Amino acid sequence: MSYSIAIIGASGYTGAELIRLIATHPSFEIKALAANSKAGQSMAKVFPHLRHLDLPDLVTWEQIDYDQIDLCFCALPHKTSQEVISQLPKSVKIVDLSADFRLRDPAEYEKWYGNPHSAVEMQKEAVYGLTEFYREQIRSARLVAGTGCNAATGQFILRPLIAAGVIDLDEIILDLQCGVSGAGRSLKENLLHAELSEGTNAYAVGGTHRHLGEFDQEFSALAGREVKIQFTPHLGPFNRGILATTYVKGDPQAIHAQLVSAYAAEPFVEVLPFGETPSTHHVRGSNFCHLGVTGDRIEGRAIVVGALDNLCKGSSGQAVQNANLMLGEEETAGLMLAPCFP
Amino acid sequence: MSYSIAIIGASGYTGAELIRLIATHPSFEIKALAANSKAGQSMAKVFPHLRHLDLPDLVTWEQIDYDQIDLCFCALPHKTSQEVISQLPKSVKIVDLSADFRLRDPAEYEKWYGNPHSAVEMQKEAVYGLTEFYREQIRSARLVAGTGCNAATGQFILRPLIAAGVIDLDEIILDLQCGVSGAGRSLKENLLHAELSEGTNAYAVGGTHRHLGEFDQEFSALAGREVKIQFTPHLGPFNRGILATTYVKGDPQAIHAQLVSAYAAEPFVEVLPFGETPSTHHVRGSNFCHLGVTGDRIEGRAIVVGALDNLCKGSSGQAVQNANLMLGEEETAGLMLAPCFP
Amino acid sequence: MSYSIAIIGASGYTGAELIRLIATHPSFEIKALAANSKAGQSMAKVFPHLRHLDLPDLVTWEQIDYDQIDLCFCALPHKTSQEVISQLPKSVKIVDLSADFRLRDPAEYEKWYGNPHSAVEMQKEAVYGLTEFYREQIRSARLVAGTGCNAATGQFILRPLIAAGVIDLDEIILDLQCGVSGAGRSLKENLLHAELSEGTNAYAVGGTHRHLGEFDQEFSALAGREVKIQFTPHLGPFNRGILATTYVKGDPQAIHAQLVSAYAAEPFVEVLPFGETPSTHHVRGSNFCHLGVTGDRIEGRAIVVGALDNLCKGSSGQAVQNANLMLGEEETAGLMLAPCFP
Amino acid sequence: MSYSIAIIGASGYTGAELIRLIATHPSFEIKALAANSKAGQSMAKVFPHLRHLDLPDLVTWEQIDYDQIDLCFCALPHKTSQEVISQLPKSVKIVDLSADFRLRDPAEYEKWYGNPHSAVEMQKEAVYGLTEFYREQIRSARLVAGTGCNAATGQFILRPLIAAGVIDLDEIILDLQCGVSGAGRSLKENLLHAELSEGTNAYAVGGTHRHLGEFDQEFSALAGREVKIQFTPHLGPFNRGILATTYVKGDPQAIHAQLVSAYAAEPFVEVLPFGETPSTHHVRGSNFCHLGVTGDRIEGRAIVVGALDNLCKGSSGQAVQNANLMLGEEETAGLMLAPCFP
Repeated sequence: MSYSIAIIGASGYTGAELIRLIATHPSFEIKALAANSKAGQSMAKVFPHLRHLDLPDLVTWEQIDYDQIDLCFCALPHKTSQEVISQLPKSVKIVDLSADFRLRDPAEYEKWYGNPHSAVEMQKEAVYGLTEFYREQIRSARLVAGTGCNAATGQFILRPLIAAGVIDLDEIILDLQCGVSGAGRSLKENLLHAELSEGTNAYAVGGTHRHLGEFDQEFSALAGREVKIQFTPHLGPFNRGILATTYVKGDPQAIHAQLVSAYAAEPFVEVLPFGETPSTHHVRGSNFCHLGVTGDRIEGRAIVVGALDNLCKGSSGQAVQNANLMLGEEETAGLMLAPCFP
Repeated sequence: MSYSIAIIGASGYTGAELIRLIATHPSFEIKALAANSKAGQSMAKVFPHLRHLDLPDLVTWEQIDYDQIDLCFCALPHKTSQEVISQLPKSVKIVDLSADFRLRDPAEYEKWYGNPHSAVEMQKEAVYGLTEFYREQIRSARLVAGTGCNAATGQFILRPLIAAGVIDLDEIILDLQCGVSGAGRSLKENLLHAELSEGTNAYAVGGTHRHLGEFDQEFSALAGREVKIQFTPHLGPFNRGILATTYVKGDPQAIHAQLVSAYAAEPFVEVLPFGETPSTHHVRGSNFCHLGVTGDRIEGRAIVVGALDNLCKGSSGQAVQNANLMLGEEETAGLMLAPCFP
Repeated sequence: MSYSIAIIGASGYTGAELIRLIATHPSFEIKALAANSKAGQSMAKVFPHLRHLDLPDLVTWEQIDYDQIDLCFCALPHKTSQEVISQLPKSVKIVDLSADFRLRDPAEYEKWYGNPHSAVEMQKEAVYGLTEFYREQIRSARLVAGTGCNAATGQFILRPLIAAGVIDLDEIILDLQCGVSGAGRSLKENLLHAELSEGTNAYAVGGTHRHLGEFDQEFSALAGREVKIQFTPHLGPFNRGILATTYVKGDPQAIHAQLVSAYAAEPFVEVLPFGETPSTHHVRGSNFCHLGVTGDRIEGRAIVVGALDNLCKGSSGQAVQNANLMLGEEETAGLMLAPCFP
Repeated sequence: MSYSIAIIGASGYTGAELIRLIATHPSFEIKALAANSKAGQSMAKVFPHLRHLDLPDLVTWEQIDYDQIDLCFCALPHKTSQEVISQLPKSVKIVDLSADFRLRDPAEYEKWYGNPHSAVEMQKEAVYGLTEFYREQIRSARLVAGTGCNAATGQFILRPLIAAGVIDLDEIILDLQCGVSGAGRSLKENLLHAELSEGTNAYAVGGTHRHLGEFDQEFSALAGREVKIQFTPHLGPFNRGILATTYVKGDPQAIHAQLVSAYAAEPFVEVLPFGETPSTHHVRGSNFCHLGVTGDRIEGRAIVVGALDNLCKGSSGQAVQNANLMLGEEETAGLMLAPCFP
């Protein structure tokens, strides 16, 4: 059985990553690619690395014949995404990669993103797309909201620990480095090679990064009380990868045991032996997430480090994983690519 | 049908790349992995990016039960390779990734590699592994000698032009940049990040690079006369990729036409429209080779640029492609991975 | 004695490099910094690496009181540069870093840059700024036209060889890799870290790069006949540095001897022992140019490799060197900074 | 007045950085360079970027005539350093860049470095080399022990806060990224470009990094009680730079005020306006340290970020700064080089 796929927002990095993954997917077939600003162009021009594929030229999203489409990936900027998705026919399943349907509370959305939500009804319908924790809802969902890439990483580390009550909920620090592609293909001075290579810096310091909205929502729901973490992202001079170093209070062995047990059956989340730490190099280009736990020299404190590829497991890989569930496919279909090292 | 595969020399980069490719190959199954210096270790320790795979631990090559093996990849250093391969049972098909069986003339081998060849009889038996040009011999070969990564790139550019007689054979200059992984996983000062990043340099200048042995052999055979090219490799601050910029004398349009026609039916070689130039970014992690032709402002001269991934199309991807032919599989099996960009 | 310096175009990379060099110059004092698009901003905001310096805020170039200025560096885009410079008072000495006054023939300027020259009279007055070859004219010049960074590199390699008649003038190939900062601080997709790191590509292939105008002018003048070289630039994933690999026909030892003799007394040009090749790593952040000569295996052919820092010796360092001469200072003042390695 | 300088351990990165700085120092003259493993070689061979300098060839440290030397920099590995320094004549002033004389308690030294200290008497004599806090002792010291590069960064951030009592001493987390050159020029697999570029990882997780010995000693002395911080270093894909992101509990404005006041008169430490954060890009190649303070969204918590160049301010720049004091020179002599950006 084969499914007809459309991608709206195909000229950005998450769009390209979706195509890369679908290129070897056994049952997904790309029927339409949209990018309004580049409509009419061939994908070989927009992304020459995809030139070997027989892909449709870019169109506007309005030009797609949605009757032919089983599932549509939306890889648009937030705000644009809700405007477009609210106009798509209800017959089409949607995996949204933007931030627009991640936050269930419209007030929270407006607080973090600055604009009122214009598709509040659909927001209610959306299922949060962190596959490993919303698997059953995703299977039957029509609209799935992909998580933020940083938010995914932090949740792989912290959800089992918060759920099990093995860490102090008031003392969680998430220090994170994200590769450049996390900022997208936008023309900003700080994303130029000359500005960004050969160094690093923190940004959105002090609790201002938008992915905190997701952390707040998810962790508080899990704990049954308000949980606010500290979170500092850094921009690193590499293209793909998120490394999250998390400082928690609790028994390190219990923390490790909890993660081992939580992910024992998961195909994409690997918990390293106690005391080992992961590296982004070893997940690059793949849908895997590696987690490692170490005890601190100060008793009762642990460091949990997580690594994943922001474009793949943190975004487009997760999206394909969700699409697999929504269409009744094998969850791992198209996603078992080994990391590309070196 | 499934084939049992062994890899000797599995702790280097080409070994890891073979495993990455075979991980999603439909009919190859890895039965044994050898690396004598690291025998006893798990692959998860040697290459943590492969930890999700269910791989056998490393053994010595002597410990492998070759009765169980259909085909063996040898990813050993030259000289060691001929010593090992000459001791393997004749029942096993072999794809050698080293330089040991590329040169048909033992004197040429000794000239370029500095040691007398110790398996001269097998050297005669070996088929040169540039798939697109030795396809039929490879199908029935027992021992295939993978080409050098630079040698492959240069030949994709030049073979059709030399064969067709559309360029001046005495005026060929091949200027090439190769990524770091081409130098392998060896501990050398000039391969340290601190020495190599943020700059570039030429090496083996003046016609001393060993891959010239292959160029001389192949181009002279093609032309029916001695052909000696000029070749300068550079070491670039990137991990994967070869970009070859070739200066030739001949009619640019005729040159382009020749390449288009030579590769029209090839699944892995893409000739860009006249005047466009390829980039290593767009073949990274894939088995594709992109070629572009431009005319110079000086009449009768052309620049032909080629790009491929040295570890994949230039080495392990080519090896899998050859193994597919030797085992009667689809030539493209396991090799249609899209490039990993960005 | 102290000289009052202004920089117009201080918000780009060559502007920043001028300030870096002048920061430890014994007799230059920065009195005014202009960048019309960022007028009113502090340099600490535009270039935080300069925050320790006591610098004037940015103004528009019209706001500068030129009566107070001894010498003005113009680091503007071409076309804008000629418009601004033609309005500056004649009392101010000017070092222009743009392309506007490099070509003596207005028709050549229009051919390479696409717009008619609007300050033809000043064009005649301008002295070409390749210090080592125009030293005496520069000393007494009012307007010096800094060379292109690629053009400088190629000329350091080729001028002594053309002048001495030791190479074939019809068979010169200059293959060159340039670091990213050579493209300036402009917001272009191909300059993003995600697009440019981890790979390389050629551009302006086939004799279309504008610096060919300089090569044609200078080499033809030197030779007393038309000389047209082939020139292919590549964009490399590093911030600073140009490596030029030049293929010439002639006796390698004679070529080496010629370079050794030409640069024996030069403080900034180092000719390596015969057979050694330079690296951009070893000139990064400095005003030095390293040259190396090797003979090819084909008799009568040589490879000459040159390395310099495009922002420093290729642009702002050369500009300071020229300013030193114009103001009667020691030529090396402020320029003896050792390269920054690693 | 001019001082005669020797460098023992001149073939490593901190040795090269010392030479780079001394190259433009107004009163230091290099009289001897030692590196026992490379004795007899020229510096142009060991570090081609220094070839323009008129430097003595490498000798063994035993061959140096110490009567001619005013001050000796020791850039040797720990353990070797104490063995060599204990044999040098007492007439020579010494700045040691190794870890051997940083810890005043021999038991602490043995605990962190694994070997008993073999020069315990000299250890007592040594002054801790963090210039900004030990200035007066350094002026009159004969032996100064340069700090660890991470230890320096952490102390610039935390010393004024601990001394002033404005942060909770039991809740200090120092999360740090260090560039590759911090690991020296040693041949280790994880320092290869292919292994390290394009990603990041934590190491020495859980309180095992040796620089904790310095933190424990200094912070406990300052506070008059035991202070143990949490410290996680990461290895980043850049050559120079340390970025330390520090999580503390206390009033953010008070913390900022404390840093502003502590460093008001310091030439090399810049405290950014409240809410701004530094970047390693902006201190690369310089002796400057930038500090920034931001309040967290959780009241009573602050994030303090510090950036410096590990090879310069974190090691060789600090060493020259100390040597200036020990020899009665201007403290900033040779050290006002502007950062090298981009």
